[in-house]
Amino acid sequence: MAPKILFCGTVRWAKKERFDMFEGIAEVLDLDVSDRADLFAAFAQGGKYSDIVAIFRDNSVNERIGPFDRELVDALPASVKWVASNGAGYDNVDFGRLKERDIKLSNTPGAVDDATATTALYLIISALRQFSIGERSLRRGTWKPAVSESAFDLTGKTLGILGLGGIGLRIAELAHAFPMRVVYYNRKPNPNAPEYCEYVGDVKKMLGQADVVSVSVPLNAQTRGLVGEDYIRAMKKGACLVNTARGAVVDEEAMIKALEDGHLGSIGLDVFPDEPNVNPRLLEFTNATLLPHMGTHNQDTSRAMEVRTMQNIVDYLKTGSGKDIIPEMQ
Amino acid sequence: MAPKILFCGTVRWAKKERFDMFEGIAEVLDLDVSDRADLFAAFAQGGKYSDIVAIFRDNSVNERIGPFDRELVDALPASVKWVASNGAGYDNVDFGRLKERDIKLSNTPGAVDDATATTALYLIISALRQFSIGERSLRRGTWKPAVSESAFDLTGKTLGILGLGGIGLRIAELAHAFPMRVVYYNRKPNPNAPEYCEYVGDVKKMLGQADVVSVSVPLNAQTRGLVGEDYIRAMKKGACLVNTARGAVVDEEAMIKALEDGHLGSIGLDVFPDEPNVNPRLLEFTNATLLPHMGTHNQDTSRAMEVRTMQNIVDYLKTGSGKDIIPEMQ
Repeated sequence: MAPKILFCGTVRWAKKERFDMFEGIAEVLDLDVSDRADLFAAFAQGGKYSDIVAIFRDNSVNERIGPFDRELVDALPASVKWVASNGAGYDNVDFGRLKERDIKLSNTPGAVDDATATTALYLIISALRQFSIGERSLRRGTWKPAVSESAFDLTGKTLGILGLGGIGLRIAELAHAFPMRVVYYNRKPNPNAPEYCEYVGDVKKMLGQADVVSVSVPLNAQTRGLVGEDYIRAMKKGACLVNTARGAVVDEEAMIKALEDGHLGSIGLDVFPDEPNVNPRLLEFTNATLLPHMGTHNQDTSRAMEVRTMQNIVDYLKTGSGKDIIPEMQ
Repeated sequence: MAPKILFCGTVRWAKKERFDMFEGIAEVLDLDVSDRADLFAAFAQGGKYSDIVAIFRDNSVNERIGPFDRELVDALPASVKWVASNGAGYDNVDFGRLKERDIKLSNTPGAVDDATATTALYLIISALRQFSIGERSLRRGTWKPAVSESAFDLTGKTLGILGLGGIGLRIAELAHAFPMRVVYYNRKPNPNAPEYCEYVGDVKKMLGQADVVSVSVPLNAQTRGLVGEDYIRAMKKGACLVNTARGAVVDEEAMIKALEDGHLGSIGLDVFPDEPNVNPRLLEFTNATLLPHMGTHNQDTSRAMEVRTMQNIVDYLKTGSGKDIIPEMQ
């Protein structure tokens, strides 16, 4: 009998791929429960999901089944060996508990790099060139904003990348085309970094060199609130802060304070600490470009992410392991 | 006696450079007239500008002295040999009449390339990724737009450049970083085009290959209304049209019709045929990113353009000619 896979989430774009990928190697079950209690009953002995071996998950069903937290992990049947999470970030999955239960968690690195880096570049251009201000001015019927000549070119400016992983590397490539100078901080130099990415081993020195800082670290216990008062004050006066990672990596109060007193010249945010809620104070700052977490939102990337999520399950079924086990489990 | 230079315009950023560049070689006069009649009187024999040899011009004084049209050219004293216009476009100067009077006109190619290409890239990202929609949605308090998954990545898409000159080449370089495929149409292949820019000698074939078309031709008698019904219908259904050149190069009615019937999927415009007026019908289309002609608006580029404009006058004074004589006079 073919192993059973549960889709706790939505395959929206790669429907044909899903059929092709699992045909003949697994029985695919779509989530068919009314609520969390119903799901837990289906996981329990004799339940309809009591013998699933892998789970495809995303946040699209959270309203129905709640978070992928310790309680949910504990409810999983013993047959589950793999959870494939759709997305780069997995801070919303209790991977510590999964690890204790010896269940692997995979994410979708790579698939999101292009789209997220493009989002960061958009925010950088908008903030430095004050284009978001310009768009709002035109739509208000006031044509050009008076402030536009305090804008800057990207070319020749310095981009500081906090966390040069896959996404950071793509941001660096796009910025290099202008060219911008690229400096970065990681705990160790990234061996995949091209020569034009200058490693600065002292994070505050790196921040002090940058005209724009891109926050590109994953959210975890070490990075929560990482970009706080001290990091922000280590930046140049008038510099721009861009965040496409997770809202909680930046101390929002410290950022707002720095906008108020002019230490930060502009911000570009795709992420917020309490999504979908946006702190209304952010809307008051003229030079703020604010996107509603659209970093990976487009059908090309969505399809690629869905395929990569499923590929991990296919690889697990065929070889006993997938390529994208999260670093904490490697 | 040092030759006299009249500044019919504003040096805002390169004030120090102006002082340094003309010190000891020319007497610099700032425009000091109340209106057009006053200016013409100053140009006339015995007037305070009756012996100027060169003019720095931009549009910032148009409200006071009117357009740089045939009437104004005819009013110039015989001593004028050079008009240095600040900006890439010079459709607002009657260069035909200048030529008849054997007065050279220079513009500022090169200086505007980075900034204009960056603007085009911003419009491309915004249109394909639907970020302008996203920003408006967030600021309305409605978080994500429902449509965002009909967005696309840039990577792997085809960019068609109509007019591969200095600005088009910079757009190509920035797009190549993703990479996008780049095709272009000029009357002849651009010998400076890098290998990845594919020349398509049939403009409609070029348009039919592109997911995004960037209009990058100067406005002149040949290009007015160039992108009309036939060009737009030669584009793929759902494609994106971006214009950072001049509004009048595109037939606005044909563009609006194609947006209405869905032939065009999105537009990104920095320029409009009747600036600062924007056709209010454009504001009705969801996927329209509209900037109030900010293509070169930033202090780095503004300074570079001011310097390049003045350099033409300096070169003329020192050598008898400047580098940036417009093509129509070469």
